[in-house]
Amino acid sequence: MKIAIAGLGTVGKGVYDYLIDNDEVVSKRSGENIEIVAVSARSKSGKDINFDKVKWYDNALDMAEDENIDTVVELIGGDSGVALDLFVKSLKNNKNVVTANKAIMSKHGNYLAKLAEENNVHIYYEAAVAGGIPVVKTIKEGLSSNNITSILGILNGTCNYILTQMEKNSLSFNDALKDAQKLGYAEADPSFDIGGIDAAHKISILSCLAFGSQIDFETVDVVGIENIDSNDIKYAGELGFKIRLIAESEIENNKVKQRVRPFLIANDNILANVNGPDNAVLIKGDMIGDLTLIGPGAGKLPTASAVIADIIDLASKRYSNILSFKTSDIIQKEAISSGEFSGKYYIKINVEDGKGVLSSATKSLKDRDISVEQIIQKNVAETKTVDILIITDIAKESDITEVEIELNRSEYIKKKVNFISVGYNF
Amino acid sequence: MKIAIAGLGTVGKGVYDYLIDNDEVVSKRSGENIEIVAVSARSKSGKDINFDKVKWYDNALDMAEDENIDTVVELIGGDSGVALDLFVKSLKNNKNVVTANKAIMSKHGNYLAKLAEENNVHIYYEAAVAGGIPVVKTIKEGLSSNNITSILGILNGTCNYILTQMEKNSLSFNDALKDAQKLGYAEADPSFDIGGIDAAHKISILSCLAFGSQIDFETVDVVGIENIDSNDIKYAGELGFKIRLIAESEIENNKVKQRVRPFLIANDNILANVNGPDNAVLIKGDMIGDLTLIGPGAGKLPTASAVIADIIDLASKRYSNILSFKTSDIIQKEAISSGEFSGKYYIKINVEDGKGVLSSATKSLKDRDISVEQIIQKNVAETKTVDILIITDIAKESDITEVEIELNRSEYIKKKVNFISVGYNF
Repeated sequence: MKIAIAGLGTVGKGVYDYLIDNDEVVSKRSGENIEIVAVSARSKSGKDINFDKVKWYDNALDMAEDENIDTVVELIGGDSGVALDLFVKSLKNNKNVVTANKAIMSKHGNYLAKLAEENNVHIYYEAAVAGGIPVVKTIKEGLSSNNITSILGILNGTCNYILTQMEKNSLSFNDALKDAQKLGYAEADPSFDIGGIDAAHKISILSCLAFGSQIDFETVDVVGIENIDSNDIKYAGELGFKIRLIAESEIENNKVKQRVRPFLIANDNILANVNGPDNAVLIKGDMIGDLTLIGPGAGKLPTASAVIADIIDLASKRYSNILSFKTSDIIQKEAISSGEFSGKYYIKINVEDGKGVLSSATKSLKDRDISVEQIIQKNVAETKTVDILIITDIAKESDITEVEIELNRSEYIKKKVNFISVGYNF
Repeated sequence: MKIAIAGLGTVGKGVYDYLIDNDEVVSKRSGENIEIVAVSARSKSGKDINFDKVKWYDNALDMAEDENIDTVVELIGGDSGVALDLFVKSLKNNKNVVTANKAIMSKHGNYLAKLAEENNVHIYYEAAVAGGIPVVKTIKEGLSSNNITSILGILNGTCNYILTQMEKNSLSFNDALKDAQKLGYAEADPSFDIGGIDAAHKISILSCLAFGSQIDFETVDVVGIENIDSNDIKYAGELGFKIRLIAESEIENNKVKQRVRPFLIANDNILANVNGPDNAVLIKGDMIGDLTLIGPGAGKLPTASAVIADIIDLASKRYSNILSFKTSDIIQKEAISSGEFSGKYYIKINVEDGKGVLSSATKSLKDRDISVEQIIQKNVAETKTVDILIITDIAKESDITEVEIELNRSEYIKKKVNFISVGYNF
């Protein structure tokens, strides 16, 4: 099998080096020789590649015209521009594509899968979701007999690192973010990660695989972790919870509920014990019951591990439908909007004096028949204010939104009220 | 693809029913029709099978002669007799075999894989290890680029159920075992499970897959959970540990260390939070880092889930080497004997009076340069005796064995001293 690698960043170069150094074991595993015949990247210099044997392309797009190439490994990134053009042109010219690109699969996966089928080629994208964890293979092949009803997990290592740093070292959000950036766990512009977009890309792909529905990124309800402060983490801890950014997709009445948001999770739940940049995926199926996978969600070697496993699968001719089913067998399922969600909620109200707001908040909840499980009042020494914490019983999110609007309008409230979902049923 | 099912117990009948009820989704997933053409079991009566369409065999062995059958699903069980005869004859007659039989794979897997290769057929055995968890596929395919250095986990649901019942409901070993038998988690003769043999079968298979070495059941060092009493569980809890039966395989100096034994595991370790009949597998690879899989280790539906996934893989022509590599590429690695192990140990000495034995025990440890991390003395009200607990620092197991012999010979000791490994490095 003759492959080309487009993009020679840490992952791309990691894949290149592995395949050069391990050709014997790879051919023993796959029964096939895998030869890197071409590469492309922003710059040719300093790459430690033998260009007598490997063809260099200034323009990655030209690789799609090279008849000597069977498979293009797209590690450029981004959901448009060269990455998308190369992806499309490669498929049209009957080349398989292996990618780690969640954004492109989330936004264009339905189209790309159809295009690949029309051209009798394959797309492999294990590295696009949950880094090194083989979750795409697990759902498509390992759980192929299961009717999956729910899939949820920690899909963004940056957020999980920040939240666990805040928790373990009592850091502020900003200090934990800086720490993550220093260690390479967060980008210079971290907005896709901390805003939940990256996790939303991933859960939209997993939804499709789990439920046989189209990839539907647009309807994922997304809340990031920007509004979690160190007091939330502290209070959650005192109440027996940790805070994690959870991406979740569920079937309810044949509709798909997709959401990304921070959740309070009970300490003894396995997801509460997933720390640092790790990811976790919990799959509920009618035969398997609960299956949980935990591992590194990002990084050079774990991502390369998934990309190479895909290349070896392709060389071994281990094919499966690109999405859950052939695109002609995939149905478009209706989405559930956030107003229809229900759950328990943690509410934090910061005020100068607790008295007035307490009756105003409980009235606002009572007016909508929302029961309260716990109310706790905390003095905030630094600001000489009071935090009132409320954990509600199960309530409709549309009602909680009304409470949120009402409370934020109240004269007592100086600082926006913080609402966080409680993952009581994970 | 035309299959025969040998053995119609809960799993066999579960597989049968699924394939009959889900033929459309299975053919959409695999691009192939899967037809059950024959079945065999101890008795034909009461099976709710349409014998106009499915051929009945009184003798399962005769199915291996039926030219209408491509694949035999062996769900008879046992490592000899009909199961082994059918397995061998099916392969010799160019039929694939799908099995859930850990004993047969553990004892005869090297031979059977070679036989299958010679006859150009395949063996699938996902259900043989860790029930519904797709760990065989994960190692062979999902982690195919990894050099795996260690694999360990909770591989016996019966033992895990008993240990967690003892822990959560303060039951004695015997009461927890009876409870497990009542719920169908333990057999009438539970010796294979509680003695660690079942976990040993499974870890020997995983060793082969992880390290590219031959399956070597005979050299697994096995200790069961029979000697764990409710006080051990209680004391472990007070020290911040839970007790779990761990099957472990590791590469050390290019030798293979395989063992099954109860371990004290720190409360915040994920394995300590795997409860009831669940299984867990932790794989350490050079690219992935740590990957943990947690799910149901047994039961009708989880086991059927794995068997059916294998059948769908086979129908989809997703082939991989039967073991980690072709049998001609597999090497026999030397085994490490238990004397060469090292670790920390929990020692419980039950005596009428603590004084004499305390100095005798500490001397016995000191004579072998074994440092002590903790010594605690506990009064046992019911028997008016004293339990002395010692947690050692890292020591050689050969030294610990000497201490064990010395202590058990001592005049102070009335009841056999209990030694349990501490899983400090998981």
